[in-house]
Amino acid sequence: MARRKQLYEGKAKILYEGPEPGTVVQYFKDDATAFNNQKKGTITGKGVLNNRISEYLMTRLGEIGVPTHFIRRLNMREQLVKEVEIIPIEVVVRNVAAGSLSKKFAIPEGTPLPRSIIEFYYKNDELGDPMVSEEHITAFNWADPLEIDEIMAMSLRVNDYLSGLFLGVQLRLVDFKLEFGRYYDEEEEEPRIVLADEISPDNCRLWDMATGEKLDKDRFRRDLGGVEEAYQEVARRLGILPESGPRDVQGPSTLQ
Amino acid sequence: MARRKQLYEGKAKILYEGPEPGTVVQYFKDDATAFNNQKKGTITGKGVLNNRISEYLMTRLGEIGVPTHFIRRLNMREQLVKEVEIIPIEVVVRNVAAGSLSKKFAIPEGTPLPRSIIEFYYKNDELGDPMVSEEHITAFNWADPLEIDEIMAMSLRVNDYLSGLFLGVQLRLVDFKLEFGRYYDEEEEEPRIVLADEISPDNCRLWDMATGEKLDKDRFRRDLGGVEEAYQEVARRLGILPESGPRDVQGPSTLQ
Ligand SMILES: Nc1ncnc2c1ncn2[C@@H]1O[C@H](COP(=O)(O)OP(=O)(O)O)[C@@H](O)[C@H]1O
Ligand SMILES: Nc1ncnc2c1ncn2[C@@H]1O[C@H](COP(=O)(O)OP(=O)(O)O)[C@@H](O)[C@H]1O
Ligand SMILES: [Mg+2]
Ligand SMILES: [Mg+2]
Repeated sequence: MARRKQLYEGKAKILYEGPEPGTVVQYFKDDATAFNNQKKGTITGKGVLNNRISEYLMTRLGEIGVPTHFIRRLNMREQLVKEVEIIPIEVVVRNVAAGSLSKKFAIPEGTPLPRSIIEFYYKNDELGDPMVSEEHITAFNWADPLEIDEIMAMSLRVNDYLSGLFLGVQLRLVDFKLEFGRYYDEEEEEPRIVLADEISPDNCRLWDMATGEKLDKDRFRRDLGGVEEAYQEVARRLGILPESGPRDVQGPSTLQ
Repeated sequence: MARRKQLYEGKAKILYEGPEPGTVVQYFKDDATAFNNQKKGTITGKGVLNNRISEYLMTRLGEIGVPTHFIRRLNMREQLVKEVEIIPIEVVVRNVAAGSLSKKFAIPEGTPLPRSIIEFYYKNDELGDPMVSEEHITAFNWADPLEIDEIMAMSLRVNDYLSGLFLGVQLRLVDFKLEFGRYYDEEEEEPRIVLADEISPDNCRLWDMATGEKLDKDRFRRDLGGVEEAYQEVARRLGILPESGPRDVQGPSTLQ
């Protein structure tokens, strides 16, 4: 069986050409990186869990009217998504001080922020994903002001919805990172901004409401142990523990 | 004669209580610092020159309708200004890539930017003056959205005017840093945003149009030599070389 064409291999996922034009397959790896690739490792089963968690969250967001790239899950490690032109900006939404914000402003981790804060980082590993403002984004033409407005409005909706959803399963959504892309629909003149990439414990900080226990990638970043178990626990609370066993493909599969 | 009350000693200036309520005296020192105080030195005569240069530029800006804190120069090293509540944001306007922007985005120094870019830094030496966006400024209540709009509009006017003025004397205004404050006028209900602090080769990058030679604090930061001469040359080109000789007070003077 012919292998599909690989379009891109990233730190956590591989992109393959999709079965129809305008689609791509996202393959979720178990690879984990942190601190701009300085720390590398593997989290067994992460790809399977993130594929399911992202499917679930993107589907729920689609239902409330947030346009996403998600089409359907194909198997344990793959999902079919609309191909988009990724806007090279990582959008971080923060509700509680943690990570780089705590360090930058000397605010202890766990301090609730006066209001939710949106930050933009230029998605460029070589430059270390520097923080940027709307001024840089528009001056360097990474996105135009209308796109930024749309991205900010969508990010706040995502924050409202996911904050509620996670609260419902006893998790505090401390902060998270989103990526957006331009989807060029044949029928339409202008591209549409859609939520892309993934939403998973790889790019959310999720703290247990009662104990404050971290159930996210910080367990890997900070060598806290129990990384797989944390990702499983998030999936379990969301009611989407994946099937287990032989159907868990171990390497990139072929689509047909 | 009684010494006036010192209100604050900064890296480049000392603030004294002014002769009337609502005024302060800015005393310009020869001290120079760079890289968040890691590099320290003295630039002989800098205080005298910056006092004159800032007087000149603030006066010209006032004439075109940019409200400033400047009232009048008192002597070689001192000027009387309106006391304001400093907004703890350093506003950087950039026309050409240089310094931290060049480093952050790997853009060679001297590359003209696609358009002028405004950046904000939180004025806090202990935190290393981190770059912030409007989101941080409003969330932490350092300024409100209307104030930010006003500050950005004023900064662009200052950029337009000073770019022209410096071009007229064969200097390229590469970038510069401004500070703004809230001036509480007894007569008015709301404070007014005014341009404060100083405008001088300490906080502007000025390059000779023909040769590219740096005539600003980068000569000190980068150990290029000829620092005093560069500041003098800027003053000379602006037509405001100070008187010299015994009237150059060497230490803080008394006002009366
Ligand atoms: N719908 C999409 N179309 C095209 N590219 C996408 C889409 N969704 C995500 N991407 C991109 O695919 C890559 C996903 O792989 P990942 O391992 O996360 O890469 P990276 O190391 O660049 O973050 C990312 O670069 C992401 O921007
Ligand atoms: N009109 C004003 N009223 C009150 N404070 C001012 C005014 N203009 C400038 N300042 C403040 O006075 C100080 C000037 O001294 P400086 O040596 O530049 O200090 P710093 O080391 O804090 O930059 C700055 O902190 C500046 O914010
Ligand atoms: Mg990624
Ligand atoms: Mg200063």
